[in-house]
Amino acid sequence: MLNRVRSAVAHLVSSGGAPPPRPKSPDLPDDTSAPPAAAAEAPKSPPARPGSASGSGASAKPGEARASFSRPTFLQLSPGGLRRADDHAGRAVQSPPDRGRRLPWNTGYAEVINAGKSRHNEDQACCEVVYVEGRRSGPGALRELSHGQGLCFHYWGLFDGHAGGGAAEMASRLLHRHIREQLKDLVEILQGPSPPPLCLPSTPESPGSCDPAHLVSPQSCWSSQKEVTHDGLVVGAIENAFQLMDEQMARERHGHHVEGGCCALVVVYLLGKVYVANAGDSRAIIVRNGEIIPMSREFTPETERQRLQLLGFLKPELLGSEFTHLEFPRRVQPKELGQRMLYRDQNMTGWAYKKIELEDLRFPLVCGEGKKARVMATIGVTRGLGDHNLKVCSSTLPIKPFLSCFPEVRVYDLTQYEHCPDDVLVLGTDGLWDVTSDREVAATVDRVLSAYEPNDPSRYTALAQALVLGARGTPRDRGWRLPNNKLGSGDDISVFVIPLGGPGSYS
Amino acid sequence: MLNRVRSAVAHLVSSGGAPPPRPKSPDLPDDTSAPPAAAAEAPKSPPARPGSASGSGASAKPGEARASFSRPTFLQLSPGGLRRADDHAGRAVQSPPDRGRRLPWNTGYAEVINAGKSRHNEDQACCEVVYVEGRRSGPGALRELSHGQGLCFHYWGLFDGHAGGGAAEMASRLLHRHIREQLKDLVEILQGPSPPPLCLPSTPESPGSCDPAHLVSPQSCWSSQKEVTHDGLVVGAIENAFQLMDEQMARERHGHHVEGGCCALVVVYLLGKVYVANAGDSRAIIVRNGEIIPMSREFTPETERQRLQLLGFLKPELLGSEFTHLEFPRRVQPKELGQRMLYRDQNMTGWAYKKIELEDLRFPLVCGEGKKARVMATIGVTRGLGDHNLKVCSSTLPIKPFLSCFPEVRVYDLTQYEHCPDDVLVLGTDGLWDVTSDREVAATVDRVLSAYEPNDPSRYTALAQALVLGARGTPRDRGWRLPNNKLGSGDDISVFVIPLGGPGSYS
Repeated sequence: MLNRVRSAVAHLVSSGGAPPPRPKSPDLPDDTSAPPAAAAEAPKSPPARPGSASGSGASAKPGEARASFSRPTFLQLSPGGLRRADDHAGRAVQSPPDRGRRLPWNTGYAEVINAGKSRHNEDQACCEVVYVEGRRSGPGALRELSHGQGLCFHYWGLFDGHAGGGAAEMASRLLHRHIREQLKDLVEILQGPSPPPLCLPSTPESPGSCDPAHLVSPQSCWSSQKEVTHDGLVVGAIENAFQLMDEQMARERHGHHVEGGCCALVVVYLLGKVYVANAGDSRAIIVRNGEIIPMSREFTPETERQRLQLLGFLKPELLGSEFTHLEFPRRVQPKELGQRMLYRDQNMTGWAYKKIELEDLRFPLVCGEGKKARVMATIGVTRGLGDHNLKVCSSTLPIKPFLSCFPEVRVYDLTQYEHCPDDVLVLGTDGLWDVTSDREVAATVDRVLSAYEPNDPSRYTALAQALVLGARGTPRDRGWRLPNNKLGSGDDISVFVIPLGGPGSYS
Repeated sequence: MLNRVRSAVAHLVSSGGAPPPRPKSPDLPDDTSAPPAAAAEAPKSPPARPGSASGSGASAKPGEARASFSRPTFLQLSPGGLRRADDHAGRAVQSPPDRGRRLPWNTGYAEVINAGKSRHNEDQACCEVVYVEGRRSGPGALRELSHGQGLCFHYWGLFDGHAGGGAAEMASRLLHRHIREQLKDLVEILQGPSPPPLCLPSTPESPGSCDPAHLVSPQSCWSSQKEVTHDGLVVGAIENAFQLMDEQMARERHGHHVEGGCCALVVVYLLGKVYVANAGDSRAIIVRNGEIIPMSREFTPETERQRLQLLGFLKPELLGSEFTHLEFPRRVQPKELGQRMLYRDQNMTGWAYKKIELEDLRFPLVCGEGKKARVMATIGVTRGLGDHNLKVCSSTLPIKPFLSCFPEVRVYDLTQYEHCPDDVLVLGTDGLWDVTSDREVAATVDRVLSAYEPNDPSRYTALAQALVLGARGTPRDRGWRLPNNKLGSGDDISVFVIPLGGPGSYS
């Protein structure tokens, strides 16, 4: 995510090379100690449990000042390992240890720090198995369904931070808890055979139950009602969890100094289906029998140009007097007043000429191409979490109104296809994809996995490492070079490889 | 387009079955007699030339009150033929006469009136070869490039009217003129080998010329400028032409009583490329060697739900106190206050439960499914021209702010593929597609064209007739039945079949 917030980094980090003292991260109560009444509220920020095989995020204990940076706890890094992971010169590839408990599904993981562009690795990752208690509310008190009536989901998250690591770290510790919270009301509905009831009673003995006496069932309603699927409910739960995560960052940003923002790419496996939710420019693909199935698309100033321009057009006050919602192929210069220049407005995909007027001399809301495309000359991604403090450089104009925290969620039904041990879902931050095509990733999948026995549980981490090494390059001449002598990615790179079939899967 | 404006029809047309007297259509000067200075202004509304093989739209002479309805002039209908075309009981299929001059490219065309749902056929069609003079402006006066320096484009348009036939008729007579007007400045640029200059001088001796001394060429500009293609310029010209057509309807709606609105599906063939522009729920597909290539998508309350909801969210004043931007699977009832119902907001593709509050009792901005989906309980398409007078039933709330006049334009490069005489581009209003799948259309293409010699120029009209007959059905029992005994389309149906290869094409 380096280079994706240009002016903002300069704005938020002092320019002398030495970063400002990193603010103390929030030390919120672990929700295991929270009173029952608080369990229904927004998830709090608990510290991660050091040594937990599947925990993520912070390694500090409650009450301790957090280390100046942290890596996912499933890496089980010693203090020395943590220092090596933070070394820009060595750029050692980090993976979970081969000994001990593996990540669920034998998931492979590897990461590497950037080549000196930010002080710390601003990517974060999380891999968890999350149990969702069904929620019932008795009169005046909340209580949970008896054990065994709940649901499990598997969860993987990659968080690519920018302008600071705080948002990515917070998201890696909490987003899956928001998803769990959203699913609590749906536990019984999702496990039942019927489509979701359109309407639930408000304060009955058993809200969320499918007791027909309490529910306005689809059959009793208008004939023109829409049928909502179970998938649609899970997608809605994930979407709302992203929004609630973002709102929590907004609430806590002052007290806890949540820095910057992050892209979020999240996978939820629930009841036979894989939900891939993406907000930002990370990417997920499935490689199945050598075939590539895209599971996400990137949200950038270019791909979201028309959404951004429409917002600027409808709410010109968001542009201040500094920006125009019109797009020009380059910055208009004062001497060109009165001439005619190519432009696009929010309704156009083509271009036309317009006479340049004074307002057109303002900076375009969206400008640049490819990795250099920017919103308000500042940020290169248009969806994600955080960024509540992000301002246009040398201005008080907030950028957040143009950013969306909502992911696009794609659903993949695992039961519809017989998967073999070489079929994988690959998640990567943009550091991977900037220098590696989908096709090259698929070729690496084939090359690496075929070198291991199908039931060797270490093959997926070996694949993740190969992908990270192939994108990072090796230190040659001046820079990290790829085999073709092009520069490798100088960005932080994080990769999950999730096997979709074979021994050890789904467990 | 019948059934697509539910309450609005009831609102605009008296309910007794007898339609109100149709207002006199505009009789504006033919632009061939317009003074040179006016030529650069918005195209005026000329009457079509009766008997013209390629003319379209109205058959009235200048100064005459227009007949109570009109059909495309290329049908060359006699007064008796016009009456037969207006007969709901017979529903005779209309095509251009087999004798005399054919439509360009031997284009096939057929249409049929609806089964009594509106008084007249509200579809209109146009097929023209349009010559674009390049525009130069000398000091103080406009003049055109010398003949031979211009450009020709081929043009086909289908206009599916609703709530009156005026908008469709006006668009069929004028939209191609707006496109011509937009292309005038681009004649030399499009014929040159260079990419479009980013900037043109304002009032030089020869604006639009590619004289490098006058132009800010791409090479002299910032390195970060975007390269704009010739295709992008043509797309922009078509997009702006749609907007100008819509603005002209708004300006003239009071004086000329432009009734209702229309979907517009337009094809422009220019310099080897086919541009398909669609605003509404008509559809274009290419059938090439039996393969189906979609060339448009439909714009309906369902496909544009999030755009509509976002607008309602950002501009709640457009919803009055009558509508909510939230979507519910059915209308919320007062007795459900306080209960929790499934909903989606503008950012969601999934569903979640929310507690019903007073505001949720308002009618949803978007409701219903499939052909019954509506914006503000009124209109079933979300893009098109006109509808400036359209109000929510029993309300003064305008619907136009939610409708977009901008088309989606897709480009197909004819030179990239060797086409055979059986390769066709099929355009149809929704009356065709409501009862005929793409696959069925492709099967009819194969069946009908193989029954004719490849060089028989009448085969494309025979195909258009077969498509219309297959969608209309035949009069059996009570209704127009398809072979599978399902009801055929009771809507107006219009179909163009444009051959993409073989003898007679591109001329």
